Amino acid sequence: MKLKAKYIDMDTGEITALLHVSDCLEMGVHEQDRIKLKHENETVTAIVHTTERYLKPGEVGLLGKAFQFIGPELGESLEVVPTGKPESVEFIRKKMDDLELSTQEINTLVTDISLRNLSQVELSAYVTALHINGMNIRETVDLTKAMVDTGETIEFDRGPVFDFHSVGGVPGNKVTLLVVPIVAAAGLLIPKTSSRAISSAAGTADIVEVFANVNFDAKKLKKIAEEVGGIMAWGGGLNLAPADDIIIKVEYPLGVDPHAQLLASVMSKKKAVGADHLLIDIPMGQGTKVPTMEMAKQYAHDFIELGDKLGIRVECAVTYGGQPVGRAIGPALEAREAISILEGSKTPNSVVEKTLTLSGILLEMGGIIRGVDNAREILESGKALQKFREIVKAQGGNPDLKSEDIAIGKFKADVLAKKSGYLGSIMNKQLVQIARAAGSPKDKGAGLVIYKKVGSKVDAGEPLYTVYADNENKLNQAIGLTRKLEPMAVAGMVLARMPGITRYQS
Amino acid sequence: MKLKAKYIDMDTGEITALLHVSDCLEMGVHEQDRIKLKHENETVTAIVHTTERYLKPGEVGLLGKAFQFIGPELGESLEVVPTGKPESVEFIRKKMDDLELSTQEINTLVTDISLRNLSQVELSAYVTALHINGMNIRETVDLTKAMVDTGETIEFDRGPVFDFHSVGGVPGNKVTLLVVPIVAAAGLLIPKTSSRAISSAAGTADIVEVFANVNFDAKKLKKIAEEVGGIMAWGGGLNLAPADDIIIKVEYPLGVDPHAQLLASVMSKKKAVGADHLLIDIPMGQGTKVPTMEMAKQYAHDFIELGDKLGIRVECAVTYGGQPVGRAIGPALEAREAISILEGSKTPNSVVEKTLTLSGILLEMGGIIRGVDNAREILESGKALQKFREIVKAQGGNPDLKSEDIAIGKFKADVLAKKSGYLGSIMNKQLVQIARAAGSPKDKGAGLVIYKKVGSKVDAGEPLYTVYADNENKLNQAIGLTRKLEPMAVAGMVLARMPGITRYQS
Repeated sequence: MKLKAKYIDMDTGEITALLHVSDCLEMGVHEQDRIKLKHENETVTAIVHTTERYLKPGEVGLLGKAFQFIGPELGESLEVVPTGKPESVEFIRKKMDDLELSTQEINTLVTDISLRNLSQVELSAYVTALHINGMNIRETVDLTKAMVDTGETIEFDRGPVFDFHSVGGVPGNKVTLLVVPIVAAAGLLIPKTSSRAISSAAGTADIVEVFANVNFDAKKLKKIAEEVGGIMAWGGGLNLAPADDIIIKVEYPLGVDPHAQLLASVMSKKKAVGADHLLIDIPMGQGTKVPTMEMAKQYAHDFIELGDKLGIRVECAVTYGGQPVGRAIGPALEAREAISILEGSKTPNSVVEKTLTLSGILLEMGGIIRGVDNAREILESGKALQKFREIVKAQGGNPDLKSEDIAIGKFKADVLAKKSGYLGSIMNKQLVQIARAAGSPKDKGAGLVIYKKVGSKVDAGEPLYTVYADNENKLNQAIGLTRKLEPMAVAGMVLARMPGITRYQS
Repeated sequence: MKLKAKYIDMDTGEITALLHVSDCLEMGVHEQDRIKLKHENETVTAIVHTTERYLKPGEVGLLGKAFQFIGPELGESLEVVPTGKPESVEFIRKKMDDLELSTQEINTLVTDISLRNLSQVELSAYVTALHINGMNIRETVDLTKAMVDTGETIEFDRGPVFDFHSVGGVPGNKVTLLVVPIVAAAGLLIPKTSSRAISSAAGTADIVEVFANVNFDAKKLKKIAEEVGGIMAWGGGLNLAPADDIIIKVEYPLGVDPHAQLLASVMSKKKAVGADHLLIDIPMGQGTKVPTMEMAKQYAHDFIELGDKLGIRVECAVTYGGQPVGRAIGPALEAREAISILEGSKTPNSVVEKTLTLSGILLEMGGIIRGVDNAREILESGKALQKFREIVKAQGGNPDLKSEDIAIGKFKADVLAKKSGYLGSIMNKQLVQIARAAGSPKDKGAGLVIYKKVGSKVDAGEPLYTVYADNENKLNQAIGLTRKLEPMAVAGMVLARMPGITRYQS
């Protein structure tokens, strides 16, 4: 069928063609079927959506990225032919039926995902089937390799390459800003890429962006890392494992992160930058991605085995993630806290201790003995601060920046303890919700500073935490939420009253 | 946030709002998140899609049915507020984790589906989880009841109500056109609703539409059925169990039909028309929905048990579905074949036999003894033809219609056997593909007439089947497919040659 082109700039996450229902009837195609669009020598396959009014019969609407592939002029005629589903849909069906996928099947599937050949419905079925039925280690290795092969890779001229990843889920985890300069100051190459927040209050890329650029192409990233020894870049601009970004967009609304996909997601991005030695931080605890030690050990085991098959030496550190790391949550507040430690602050202790332990492991992986002692010496001597400044300068920031120069939210309010007692629990997810309501991560100055950790003694009327925001309206919204969510629960000294036996005398 | 309304008439199958990425960043919402749109006193929740160019910052695009709920004028301001996911997403997660859903959870889930509160991604996760993890009978009963409760129901003044359903998947299954007039002629009330083809060559509604109207509202359907005793209507126009229609749109692209959903789909539509006695035809064989006898028995068992819990007396008939029923496939060709039997034709035998067996069971369910004999008497005496004419007249068709009056495709071509032998197999799905390529079900005259059944002796050059089409182009396309698919395989008399032992003498 010949249809006239009409453009609609809306990215549905798929390559979509909008057709009039009467043309669909004529061609025998339904919503979610596929059609081939031909223009001169170019062809693109699109997923069908239907309309009764937006188009006239005889028109075809090209949504989002569909038109870039074939580029007809507005109103030009396109040849439209119904076509079948990609083979990958059968492979998703196989996984739905709990069958093992072959290497070739996984390659085809990942290629189709990366080329956006699959619909949202099909991608959701893939994620759901993977969540339920999983993948064995052979499939996971193939999945990881296929995700690397369908994206950009970076090869460094000097090696070995050290890398670090935190599985995430714990708020306030700004240790990357400290680990990278310490490891680089020790003479090891650590080209660290990080993500932005999706559902958290601040990703490492959001924090670094407060004082430096994070968006580099592969060539520039390579140059900076090789010259300075370290970089803290945003991974999202590099097109490493693009299939992963597409899958994440479907995992997010379902609130799932299938085990095999999480493994492949982390490892593919590390393989793509040529990591030889990789340390993985697995924050474990209520409200993180890994709530139990059993699960943490399973992840550690699988990361190490997967690394072995990919030629990456992996070590894992299971860390305490049951409450925030340090006191600050939110891009500018976390940047301030991290830089103050580089400047010599000994607190918060949880950040310093975690930093030194992780840096120490990386140094030892690089053949430097007494890793933690060496890391401490690098931090306390100011060498880490010096390296941090070199990195900031290379990333286009002000190398003379001091922690107190970083602008934080102009509007703030304290949240006070209603009663005396001990802090019984801190709920990570609720704190993140409040920080996001205050404007994190988009408003850089927004976030929280907390004053009490689990087990701290609290007096009624004492501040538990301060909420910061860049505008008053968002501050009010966040404060409204604090009352609803109560993320920091103070338990009275008496946890339960057990009445004794009362005898009545008549 | 206040945004200006802009309309986009495109039905994505969800209630969708298109936002500019910068407004998303400001509000902290992502693709697939939800926002509440408020206008005067009306509120609607929509799923977020993003654009960088179709809208300017400050505008909101209202897609498909979103705007009907709140109806602002073009350019008017709407209050837009981020909001959470419906609770149902948690229940889908529970099913993904293979947990049993409570009655209340199923009610909420089905209500959200019927109100289009769930996204395509979420619906796909539901269908996939249901395919993998299934539902027990208690959940299936609740699912069915919830699907009835969220749609229209019809109550007949006279009873009991008899009904019939064929699980489908076998081409040429036009028996409803014969069963309904026979059962109605016996004095039983049979208000039959049917579907249109989705992936088959012709649904019962497509066939009946060749000679009568099929689209009635509930009131008109009730009137016709009560006056004439029977009706053959399209179920899609009645809003019975609307959640089912939404779920089917996601099952279709995945090519799945989860057991519990299939059961609930059939039974909800029967419960909605108040069926007291229900006969279910389960065509079993390669290329149908039920390939094995074991699976057929499982369906029969579950239909009967489900009926018991819903107050419907169910009987099931497992029928042979390994090849087409009768000779004709396609709306007009099937109408012709069915009416010719009402007019007295004794062939095709498979149609006559299946009709009398099924009608006989229904008559016996209605207390009429020797059901098959009675059904045969009703058919052969012309009483069935008389009742058929009454039904056609009530449905606005020509009651004097003769089978040979029905227009079939003007363009036709025979497909000949390439060699002599016996017909080894007929592939249902491939025949359907050819009929659809010829124009079925949209082109009423398009389809196939087959001359040989499995086991028939075939001479080289003899016609195996004829392809009919309403236009020459589609005929050529269908004929092209016959060569590729070879749906009817003739095996030579010698199926395999087993060479003996040869001794060489030196």
